[in-house]
Order: sequence, then structure tokens, then C-alpha cells
Amino acid sequence: MPLSDELWPEVQPAAARRLMLAGVQAFAERGYHGTTTRDIAGAAGMSPAGLYVYFPSKLALLAEISRSGHEQMLATLEKIVAEGRPPTATLTRLMTDFVSWHARRHTVARVVQYELHVLGDPEYQVVAALRQQIEQLFRRTISAGVTTGEFTVPEVRTTARSVLSLGIDVARWYGDHIRTGPTALGRQYAQLALRMVGAAADPVGEHL
Amino acid sequence: MPLSDELWPEVQPAAARRLMLAGVQAFAERGYHGTTTRDIAGAAGMSPAGLYVYFPSKLALLAEISRSGHEQMLATLEKIVAEGRPPTATLTRLMTDFVSWHARRHTVARVVQYELHVLGDPEYQVVAALRQQIEQLFRRTISAGVTTGEFTVPEVRTTARSVLSLGIDVARWYGDHIRTGPTALGRQYAQLALRMVGAAADPVGEHL
Repeated sequence: MPLSDELWPEVQPAAARRLMLAGVQAFAERGYHGTTTRDIAGAAGMSPAGLYVYFPSKLALLAEISRSGHEQMLATLEKIVAEGRPPTATLTRLMTDFVSWHARRHTVARVVQYELHVLGDPEYQVVAALRQQIEQLFRRTISAGVTTGEFTVPEVRTTARSVLSLGIDVARWYGDHIRTGPTALGRQYAQLALRMVGAAADPVGEHL
Repeated sequence: MPLSDELWPEVQPAAARRLMLAGVQAFAERGYHGTTTRDIAGAAGMSPAGLYVYFPSKLALLAEISRSGHEQMLATLEKIVAEGRPPTATLTRLMTDFVSWHARRHTVARVVQYELHVLGDPEYQVVAALRQQIEQLFRRTISAGVTTGEFTVPEVRTTARSVLSLGIDVARWYGDHIRTGPTALGRQYAQLALRMVGAAADPVGEHL
């Protein structure tokens, strides 16, 4: 399966997915401002005019890459929370999936995270709302753990933000030269997250 | 004191510092590839030719911003380690200063961190060596804590990297809208770092 189909199965048609992949690769290499629509169209095997059939602008393409990345992440995390496990097990799974996604999809993730400030309204608001929802899932899980006595946290907001930070920063430094695979890294980071929330036990491996 | 003097007291003359500040602001706003030497020179009140008196290229300017930022950070952290406190107190101070610097200097830090991949050899090697030394200070402090029994860490390398990650990511999200000041944030994050290394006690405030 082409990488573009794997990354964006919900985007139609295939040409739009190819443009998104070309956009990700160009933005990752030269930054948003250093990339032209001509570069992107060329890399996707199209004329510059061909790009405009699918995306009204370079900004619209970035917005779609960003929206889609955040929506996929949110859907994955919502599914985990809906399974209704106790907070320690839920946080372990949230963190494992959040981190392994950022490692596995580090090029997309880097573009999504670091070109975010380029988006203006209303595109930024759409993504900001999705980010809020992701942060809420972590915050609610941590709060639930405080309530059950599983976690001890002086400041839920700071702790939730820093747990997310840890996962997001993976996109900056992860690459094919790193020996620890995405899933193994996710598990190691889940253990660190449990420590950050002061999980009562240090349950290495127990909650996976 | 102008911000450029405060940021780079060791760079001479003042015109070079003004160019570095103009560079930081332009790179932060439009990215390295989206900025021309004309933009930077103009923002520093010079002609494009004036820039070349101080920096042979846009890349040399970025390299100097990056090298200088890393050297300052390394010097600050080396001083803390040289004071020779026990690992818990040393890690607390390292993390407090590392995080508060990334919060206070978030614009410079963002450029330094996120435009790093633009540097080629030999400029990249210079900065990479400084980053290695910074990581070493954290790694040695964590290892020392494992030896004294103050810390319990399954994987020193992953833990050191993730503690640094937490600090680095501050540059991405911190801004003037954040209510927690740089020093207060540094202290909160130092407590999180102590948890990540499994510090025997949960010594809130005790080591500051």
C-alpha cells in the first residue's frame, strides 16, 4: 500500500493523498515558507494547476494535513478512553499510542507540530479545538487517577501538558537512526508518564 | 539594556548583535527558508551589503545564533554541576535553569531548536558537540544518583533524553500568554524530573 494511502485512508481521491504526502515531505525538508505549490505539485507528478483542483492554496493543503493528523490521533485516544479501564491502565495506553504515533509518523508529526503557527483563523481554530480535546483526555484521565488515589499530582494542568510535551518532542528527535522502535519507545515513555503522575506503584509492564 | 546586548554580551560589535536579534525574530516568524538576508539587514537598520560585513551568509548568522545559544546553556549547566551538590539537588538546579531559560528565551530557543536541521557540516558538528555535552551533564547526574541510591532508573539514556525533551518542548508552547513565570515553571518541571528518575523522596521545594 502506498504510504499516502496508509496515512490518509479517509481522504479522496488518491491524487489528493499524493499531494498531501508531497507537501509533508517538502515542508519537512524546507519549511512551509521555503516550499512553493509548484514544488509540491511537481513531487506529486502534477502541474501547478493540478494542485488547485484539490486544494485552493498551499495553506489549505497544510491545514488539511494538520487537521487530518490531529483527528486521527484524537480518534485513537478516544477509543482507548472509551474502553473504561482504571486510570493507571488508561494513561499507560494513551501514552504508549501517543508516543509510538509520533515516532512512527515523525515526519508528518513534525510538520503538524512545527508549522502550526502558520495557520490563521479559521483553520487554526479547527486544529486548536482538536488539540484541546486531546489535552482534555489526558487531563481527565489524570484527574480520575487523583480521585481514585492511584495518582498524586500537585498540578493536573502542568502535569498533563508536560506528559503531552514528552510525546510531542519525540517528533523532533526521532528518526530512522534510533534503535528503540516506536512501540518499545511508547512503552518506556508510558512508564515515565506513570512516574510523572506519581502512580502509587511503579508497575513496569503490568498495565500493557 | 537592549535585548540584543542581554542575549549576546560576548558578541562584538553591537551591530552584529542587532543582526542576530533581527535574524531570530525573522526566522521565528517566517522560518529560515522564508527569510532573506535583505529582510534581516532591513530589520537591523542596515543595507543588505552591511550584513555581509559581519556574517558571510544567512547560514553563518543562523550558525552563530545557534552556537551562542548552546554555549550559554552549557556554561550555565556546567557551573551548576561544578558546585558538587548531591545528585538530587544538582538535577533540581539543572532542570530549573534549563526550563526557565527555554521559557524566558522562548523565541531564541525555538529558532535554535527547530532550525537546527538547516545547518550542514561543519556548523552542525559544532552545535551537535555542544548538545552532546549538555546531554552528558544530565546523564552523568542521573547515573550518579543511581549510584548513590537516590534515583531508580531502568534506562539512563532514555530518561536523560526525556528529561531534556521536557525542557526543550517548553520553547514550542511557552509564550507571553502563559500565566506561570519562567522560574516557577522551572521549579515545577524540576519536580517532574525528580519523579521521572524515581527520586527516593518526593522532595517538593526541599532542594531549591
